[in-house]
Amino acid sequence: MEKVGVIGGGSLGTAIAQIASQNVDEVYLHLRRKELADIINQTGFNNEYYPNTKLNNNIKAITDFNKLKDCEIIFLSVPSSAFRETLSNLQKFINESVILVSTAKGIEYPSLKTMGNLIEEYFDDDYVSLSGPNFASEMVLNLETVSNIASKNKNNSKKVKEVLTTQQFKLKIIDDVVGLEICGVIKNINAMANGICKGMDINENARYAILTKGFEETQKIVEAIGGNPSTVKEYCGFGDLVLTSTSNESRNHTLGMLYGQRIIVDEDASGIVVEGKKSIKAIKDICKKYNTESIIVDFVYDVVIKHVQPKIAFKRLWEKIEN
Amino acid sequence: MEKVGVIGGGSLGTAIAQIASQNVDEVYLHLRRKELADIINQTGFNNEYYPNTKLNNNIKAITDFNKLKDCEIIFLSVPSSAFRETLSNLQKFINESVILVSTAKGIEYPSLKTMGNLIEEYFDDDYVSLSGPNFASEMVLNLETVSNIASKNKNNSKKVKEVLTTQQFKLKIIDDVVGLEICGVIKNINAMANGICKGMDINENARYAILTKGFEETQKIVEAIGGNPSTVKEYCGFGDLVLTSTSNESRNHTLGMLYGQRIIVDEDASGIVVEGKKSIKAIKDICKKYNTESIIVDFVYDVVIKHVQPKIAFKRLWEKIEN
Repeated sequence: MEKVGVIGGGSLGTAIAQIASQNVDEVYLHLRRKELADIINQTGFNNEYYPNTKLNNNIKAITDFNKLKDCEIIFLSVPSSAFRETLSNLQKFINESVILVSTAKGIEYPSLKTMGNLIEEYFDDDYVSLSGPNFASEMVLNLETVSNIASKNKNNSKKVKEVLTTQQFKLKIIDDVVGLEICGVIKNINAMANGICKGMDINENARYAILTKGFEETQKIVEAIGGNPSTVKEYCGFGDLVLTSTSNESRNHTLGMLYGQRIIVDEDASGIVVEGKKSIKAIKDICKKYNTESIIVDFVYDVVIKHVQPKIAFKRLWEKIEN
Repeated sequence: MEKVGVIGGGSLGTAIAQIASQNVDEVYLHLRRKELADIINQTGFNNEYYPNTKLNNNIKAITDFNKLKDCEIIFLSVPSSAFRETLSNLQKFINESVILVSTAKGIEYPSLKTMGNLIEEYFDDDYVSLSGPNFASEMVLNLETVSNIASKNKNNSKKVKEVLTTQQFKLKIIDDVVGLEICGVIKNINAMANGICKGMDINENARYAILTKGFEETQKIVEAIGGNPSTVKEYCGFGDLVLTSTSNESRNHTLGMLYGQRIIVDEDASGIVVEGKKSIKAIKDICKKYNTESIIVDFVYDVVIKHVQPKIAFKRLWEKIEN
């Protein structure tokens, strides 16, 4: 393959570019800010995210969408909050045969659309979604990683797999696009639940019981929206859920810990709070829409959205677990 | 219920006694050593395991099996290595109507019998097995915990649930005895795999990918031996696997870390090594017997049993994962 595009020069976009650059002639990495694009092109470093990692020479930073016209595959690695706008801007620049790949995780609120649903709105439904237990900071260093990809068009999945596969980076193709996408959002609720409990200094047996319950309920929700229940066992399900909930590097986990300790975060200054809250409301609405009950979603909703005292919320949760 | 017996005054047996003592008139806690039994009866403390936790007054330490004759339920909380001998000794002391509950995890090697299989050999097959993400040190303090119990006789499960349920300790009944038992052994292999990788300083993406693969293969093995694949999602499956593999308190995890760092343990002085090795051999043989491949079991077998260099074993594993 000759040319691949990546939109979004954040941690994940840059890592995807670095991986793809090992398999293709040229990678266009699209950024909004000209300043950072210039630095990347002049020094070879994305000094905002990876000041110590030299990017491969065939990665070219760009700031307009024109160059993307020649790309066979374009990765969409912008935050979910910027996803719709990016698609809308992108529309007139790319040809029909391009394969779009979403690496963003999130649900638009209050429309309850996944990032894939948004792609369908502006393009068609043969896009590819990528998700897994993937810290971008490890991927950019070429460290061993596995990810799932899913698409309604198996050929597209195969092409994406070809472009990203290295000795270190492995991809497993699955069929269930919506299941993969929803797992990537629910895991943040579970990470917050675990964080709240950790912040309250709840014992490990209880935290792992709650994580087990969260895993069970993830499967219930995936099934309810028409996904394949076995997707929760995948890298994008089990793997990402367990990584995000037990690693201290997850921001949603940290956010939960703060709520558990009743520390109020400056919402305007920290974008993550707003994003996290939107995910909670979205999943809560999805449970309602599909008539599915989740005591873990309720627990996080009570603490983070309704400001119920963590101890009271935990007591309610524990009364409901396995009675 | 009036009387309940617990055989084994170690960390789990003592914790089970403490929980049951809240629901029954009298708990007989059977120990081998008269010295420790005397201390418990005189001071109310099992000073070897819980020097700071006062045991409830209705727990009586005993050293002979005679007293167990009146018990309706007897918990078997001895190490798996002492399980057969305990059953053999117990045979002439208890009546037919007693409900036996195994809390031990392990497989007899080379017979490949679970603890439940051993109970069947000496008694009958309506025993109950208990397993979950349960640190005994938290249970004895009455901290929140969930466990699964399984039996071919649902009424027996219900009775055990009744005797152990408190506001903090919850039990979920499932049907799959052999699945529950085998999950409790395979998780140690996975904890070792994770420990080896941590000892080698393998990155998190890779470790969580390997854990995901281990979870998938656990389900394959459970199915192969005739268990219910959905058991792996339970507290005794997912919960215990994730707790044991990610918590630093697990001895199998530590054992793996040492192997990953190529530190040789004094096997005679540390019983855990021998037990851990037996589990690996047993699961390896089970895979062979039931024609099931597991790259995670092979990885741990290579490093711990065959002393393959961890880096070489990891390279082999990574070549096989999702190709």
